[in-house]
Amino acid sequence: MAESQEIELRGHIIDSGIMTQLFDRVMDMGGNFEILTFDIGKEKTDPSYARLRIAASSKDKLRSILSELHRLGARPLEVKDVHLVAAESDCVVPKGFYTTSNHPTNVKYGGEWIPVEAIEMDFLIVVDPKKKRAISVALGKIRNGDLVVVGEQGVSVQYPERPREQSTFEFMHGTVSSERPSETLIAKIAKEILDIRKNGGKIAVVGGPAIIHTGADKALAGMIRNGYVNVLFAGNALATHDIEYNLYGTSLGMDISTGNPVMGGHKHHLYAISEIMRAGSIKKAVDTGVIRSGIMFECVKKNVPFVLAGSIRDDGPLPDVITDVMVAQDAMRKQIEGCSMVLMIATLLHSIAVGNCLPSSVKTVCVDINPAHLTKLMDRGTTQAIGIVSDAGTFLPLLAKQLEIQSCA
Amino acid sequence: MAESQEIELRGHIIDSGIMTQLFDRVMDMGGNFEILTFDIGKEKTDPSYARLRIAASSKDKLRSILSELHRLGARPLEVKDVHLVAAESDCVVPKGFYTTSNHPTNVKYGGEWIPVEAIEMDFLIVVDPKKKRAISVALGKIRNGDLVVVGEQGVSVQYPERPREQSTFEFMHGTVSSERPSETLIAKIAKEILDIRKNGGKIAVVGGPAIIHTGADKALAGMIRNGYVNVLFAGNALATHDIEYNLYGTSLGMDISTGNPVMGGHKHHLYAISEIMRAGSIKKAVDTGVIRSGIMFECVKKNVPFVLAGSIRDDGPLPDVITDVMVAQDAMRKQIEGCSMVLMIATLLHSIAVGNCLPSSVKTVCVDINPAHLTKLMDRGTTQAIGIVSDAGTFLPLLAKQLEIQSCA
Amino acid sequence: MAESQEIELRGHIIDSGIMTQLFDRVMDMGGNFEILTFDIGKEKTDPSYARLRIAASSKDKLRSILSELHRLGARPLEVKDVHLVAAESDCVVPKGFYTTSNHPTNVKYGGEWIPVEAIEMDFLIVVDPKKKRAISVALGKIRNGDLVVVGEQGVSVQYPERPREQSTFEFMHGTVSSERPSETLIAKIAKEILDIRKNGGKIAVVGGPAIIHTGADKALAGMIRNGYVNVLFAGNALATHDIEYNLYGTSLGMDISTGNPVMGGHKHHLYAISEIMRAGSIKKAVDTGVIRSGIMFECVKKNVPFVLAGSIRDDGPLPDVITDVMVAQDAMRKQIEGCSMVLMIATLLHSIAVGNCLPSSVKTVCVDINPAHLTKLMDRGTTQAIGIVSDAGTFLPLLAKQLEIQSCA
Amino acid sequence: MAESQEIELRGHIIDSGIMTQLFDRVMDMGGNFEILTFDIGKEKTDPSYARLRIAASSKDKLRSILSELHRLGARPLEVKDVHLVAAESDCVVPKGFYTTSNHPTNVKYGGEWIPVEAIEMDFLIVVDPKKKRAISVALGKIRNGDLVVVGEQGVSVQYPERPREQSTFEFMHGTVSSERPSETLIAKIAKEILDIRKNGGKIAVVGGPAIIHTGADKALAGMIRNGYVNVLFAGNALATHDIEYNLYGTSLGMDISTGNPVMGGHKHHLYAISEIMRAGSIKKAVDTGVIRSGIMFECVKKNVPFVLAGSIRDDGPLPDVITDVMVAQDAMRKQIEGCSMVLMIATLLHSIAVGNCLPSSVKTVCVDINPAHLTKLMDRGTTQAIGIVSDAGTFLPLLAKQLEIQSCA
Repeated sequence: MAESQEIELRGHIIDSGIMTQLFDRVMDMGGNFEILTFDIGKEKTDPSYARLRIAASSKDKLRSILSELHRLGARPLEVKDVHLVAAESDCVVPKGFYTTSNHPTNVKYGGEWIPVEAIEMDFLIVVDPKKKRAISVALGKIRNGDLVVVGEQGVSVQYPERPREQSTFEFMHGTVSSERPSETLIAKIAKEILDIRKNGGKIAVVGGPAIIHTGADKALAGMIRNGYVNVLFAGNALATHDIEYNLYGTSLGMDISTGNPVMGGHKHHLYAISEIMRAGSIKKAVDTGVIRSGIMFECVKKNVPFVLAGSIRDDGPLPDVITDVMVAQDAMRKQIEGCSMVLMIATLLHSIAVGNCLPSSVKTVCVDINPAHLTKLMDRGTTQAIGIVSDAGTFLPLLAKQLEIQSCA
Repeated sequence: MAESQEIELRGHIIDSGIMTQLFDRVMDMGGNFEILTFDIGKEKTDPSYARLRIAASSKDKLRSILSELHRLGARPLEVKDVHLVAAESDCVVPKGFYTTSNHPTNVKYGGEWIPVEAIEMDFLIVVDPKKKRAISVALGKIRNGDLVVVGEQGVSVQYPERPREQSTFEFMHGTVSSERPSETLIAKIAKEILDIRKNGGKIAVVGGPAIIHTGADKALAGMIRNGYVNVLFAGNALATHDIEYNLYGTSLGMDISTGNPVMGGHKHHLYAISEIMRAGSIKKAVDTGVIRSGIMFECVKKNVPFVLAGSIRDDGPLPDVITDVMVAQDAMRKQIEGCSMVLMIATLLHSIAVGNCLPSSVKTVCVDINPAHLTKLMDRGTTQAIGIVSDAGTFLPLLAKQLEIQSCA
Repeated sequence: MAESQEIELRGHIIDSGIMTQLFDRVMDMGGNFEILTFDIGKEKTDPSYARLRIAASSKDKLRSILSELHRLGARPLEVKDVHLVAAESDCVVPKGFYTTSNHPTNVKYGGEWIPVEAIEMDFLIVVDPKKKRAISVALGKIRNGDLVVVGEQGVSVQYPERPREQSTFEFMHGTVSSERPSETLIAKIAKEILDIRKNGGKIAVVGGPAIIHTGADKALAGMIRNGYVNVLFAGNALATHDIEYNLYGTSLGMDISTGNPVMGGHKHHLYAISEIMRAGSIKKAVDTGVIRSGIMFECVKKNVPFVLAGSIRDDGPLPDVITDVMVAQDAMRKQIEGCSMVLMIATLLHSIAVGNCLPSSVKTVCVDINPAHLTKLMDRGTTQAIGIVSDAGTFLPLLAKQLEIQSCA
Repeated sequence: MAESQEIELRGHIIDSGIMTQLFDRVMDMGGNFEILTFDIGKEKTDPSYARLRIAASSKDKLRSILSELHRLGARPLEVKDVHLVAAESDCVVPKGFYTTSNHPTNVKYGGEWIPVEAIEMDFLIVVDPKKKRAISVALGKIRNGDLVVVGEQGVSVQYPERPREQSTFEFMHGTVSSERPSETLIAKIAKEILDIRKNGGKIAVVGGPAIIHTGADKALAGMIRNGYVNVLFAGNALATHDIEYNLYGTSLGMDISTGNPVMGGHKHHLYAISEIMRAGSIKKAVDTGVIRSGIMFECVKKNVPFVLAGSIRDDGPLPDVITDVMVAQDAMRKQIEGCSMVLMIATLLHSIAVGNCLPSSVKTVCVDINPAHLTKLMDRGTTQAIGIVSDAGTFLPLLAKQLEIQSCA
């Protein structure tokens, strides 16, 4: 092992499994390590500290290993400033650019550590030398001359720590299961929601149209009315079917109260869109009394902002739908800011989209009847999510009920 | 079309879709038909009557078409007695033997129509000439000399009719969906259960271990205690995990009340089996106070019979488990007799097994988180089932709640 | 039954199951019918003809029943001209507007039957009185003053017929199964593709990124190179991962040739997008030798048009991606024109989107590992699709092989 | 941390992830640890050695932690003999009995380490003092007076090590994915099979009836004929449908070569069973020329033993089916002995059953179209399995092809 370098890690590196991931990664990549110092925090709240020498057979291999360890929060003993290269042109960036994770990140610039603002996965980092600020920016938004971080030098990632005294809630991060006690989980999620609300935190819901089809809309509308939802992310389908149901009593042409198909009901979703087009917007339709109940109605009444992002399978769409997906992403990002929790219900597309924009520190719960959808969400990087294989139509009413019970207690 | 024969059908043949299936089948098989008489019932409760001439290009083709139509309830204008051939030896039956559907069936013998007793799909019909009785018998139970019905002659099937004034409950037969209003469906199932109980009907539950893992056991135990379940079909796993949970608070080594894994919990299911082995049986374990709560406890206390059928993946198994699958099938059949409704929850193996033994007239509801399991149940012949894609852990508590609400109303 | 009206149907109404659907529908809706004439085509190629009197207890009920039968192709004996109402304003349409099915449709205008152009489901029909043309138009594209068809009067739908001498290919329409003989199906699809190509037909492929992840990209690239694909519909993900793989040998950071993760590979998809941004477009990247193989490469080389439709989960996106979903829909529609067959592989979003734009006469095959996705496609109206539960990574290589074998034979 | 004990671990404890699991476990259980010695193997093939002091706040907690670490292969510095207690009666065992993992295990008895024979998960260990042998025994097979190991004292587990120079094959253990390069994986599995055969290893196939329905039977029959399969585990359904297909050309009543349903075909599986009953057994049916091709035919011709285990959903069953599940388990165990690889195809029930009996050292590949089935197999303890989400009907033909190609190379 001709080449080597010392690195250090700090924090709850053992109980968070970081240390073990580090060992695994070095071994997987054919490197070697020597533990130089390993101070385990004496008390539960104390951080640990480790200093290791990483060795590899060549400079390239060593760099490649260190690059992986970097993402786990390891850094060289002496950190230099980030290496900045100006973008040659709009969207054209220097090769070897640094790509972000969704974990809190700092960069060393001018000898000082500055936090990277608006961190989001798979972005670049741009440094503004005048304001001494570092911002995470999408590849498509890089402008000519932007100073882009290249390589890992001077970048430090705070890999998420799993505290020793963890709640079940946290225990389940990154898992998908249909063999979990559903009511126990629902009670824990309700508690989490109430705690966040008590602390003034912001809660987002990402929802798919199955919420309407399975009859869970009343539960969600009630949660909005009772102040448990601060922002709603959805598409044309959820809003259209919600409005269809509240105007005509049907969803996908089926009478939700009886489960029977309604003859002629296949036209109702188009009629619903048409009525909103006539009114001009969902808000106007609520204000003029066209819509008198439902999820969208409650959002308008409670001033809960909603982002309806367009998709290529949209009918209509409703005038409120943002048809340019890049514009919709930005609208989502704006509303995601400050969220403490995101509840994703029965939509793969919107869940992955919102998940892509979330820092890993946001508590994320995803409920879907299809376990493959939950696996995909996590495979796409939203590893902090708790995946629950359940039916929106039974899950949301039980959650609404728990919120009621626990908030009275 | 050189060969032809007249057939007739009677009953709610239009609203039940029988007529249309008949047309389809003839066309699919390259035959032709002429409608000779077609009397549609004037009132909603009146049966219809149709007489048709079926034609085909050869005798073989015609026979083959008539054989299909036979299963839809069509029969020749003049029906002769069944053709009986004695079994050459145990389990060795005459070629061309008649195989049953799961619909009510009659055979003409000695010029009289006699009902086939204990009808079950994929069985043979044996006629006892002395007692003038016809019984449906499994291939493996045919004994030397049994008089077995060969061919369709003299056999008449009553294809199930769909009444015009149908409930939603009936409307959904043979469908699988995760896009149905869950609470509406649950309310309808609760109503059906209460109606059946009011009329003295018998209700069976088929359950898998996920009932315990998802925390729905209290709901099911409550339903048994409150008299909504008359017989329980399950395997070693449901009983073991129920007992494990009630002895140690865990299921699959997880604490159900917190959702956390319990260290050492992986041994609990074996300890549970060991305790029942020590006691001698589940009943003795209840009687001696070893088991004090849970699904199996309630069954014993309420004298609800249970059939625990063995499977090759069983640990232990519990002393109550019937390890010979053919013996277990017979035990199941005995308990199925007289059932008006079967509720299948989260088990593919036991649901198909029980479904195989059910006449098509039994109301069958199957709840599973995996839509492919519901499709398979119906593909295997239990076409009368309503398939609900939902989570046992939320479905059963909501059903128990609905039963409580509706029974008080 | 106070109210009644006579209707007629023509065509392969029995073998197509139309007649039986009609009976079912009338019964379901509480109406009644009398068969006045029922002429079954004598020869296999002869159409049938039926005249029926439909009765209901009220005018409203009768109208509602006739509206359903309309969609099956039934029409009154005497058809009047369509009823046209001018749109009050852009996107604001007269109440009771007619919504299209995806079946061939004609309208009676000025006493003549004229075909509705560019038929697509859930659209409106606009008549241009000067040019005597009728066009199907999306709700969102209706402009002030457009003459919109209201009600069913004067509209005639040609419900798709199932010919008596059907191929297996057609037999499977509207079904989803994982229990079908895969190689037999693949051979039939290959035959269908070769037949279409021989007849100068146009074949579209709709593909998801799993084509790359599962290693089926070489098979698809080969099919494009060999002229079996006339247009490709996909999203940013398929194109990005295809280019990533051809530039760096990875997909989702995994080495496709070994199945091993490549360290640092998580950056490759962004690097790939960056290279195309630098080049300006996929075509330019091919022309300048940046991309030298793969699906997108073959499309450029063979002048196969592709539509890359944006989605809110897109990274980048590539410069070729159409980020406005309504613009993307129009681009898709333009390329769909004239397609005889669409092969959908491993993408729910794009399959439903393309399916929405297809007339029901286009042969549609959808392959997905997730049976729920296939069910959803059909539930959303693409009922003509054949659903195959299979793995893109094994399905496409076997299809490419079959095309090779059969084209040599 | 009042209580503490020193333990040691030896082997590839870092690269196998054992060390990190140990850290995690101690932390999860609220304990603490001090690293006393940590010698990392210098060369890739060198084992590592660690000595740690584990501390906890109470004796009970410490015992509980040590019990978990025991399963990872950790053991006290000084190991005493196992503690043996005689079973009070048949199936009635001393409380606190030791339950096995599926990893190689040794017990200290009479001061010597002796290997536990026939290791299988969730069994007890019985020591024969005369013969100085230790055997793993099912709870249900414990006999009065058997000397059963109680507690972990004197038991040492060899937790499976992941070698540093791993093949992809090994890399994927314990994962389920539909986003893997299918052909690459198939090539690797083929290579593994050929390597095992070259080394005289034994390969088992566990198969479900979908092998027949999807048309993969010819591929499997070919693999048996060519000597790639040494034992077959299946149920009544696979054998019945294989024989049905080879007698009548149908499976589930469908013509496999065309994919079309065959009229009257629903009887064929019963006819097939009847023919075998007439012959007496599958072997006799082959010997007398009743069966002339197929999977079961090849097994008989090549003297490949098969175990057909009964299930409660069986029709018939065939005379070869073992209807007592406990007897079937034993038959399976007998044939599993010495297997180097098990290939599980499209059956959840039989895969879990065989998995339960396998030592963790057996290479296990499971192919299923349903990802939830693969997850369940691993959740039930067969963690060494590689899960591949694919279609038997395309997977097996490609595997058979690869075997042909690679064996010629």
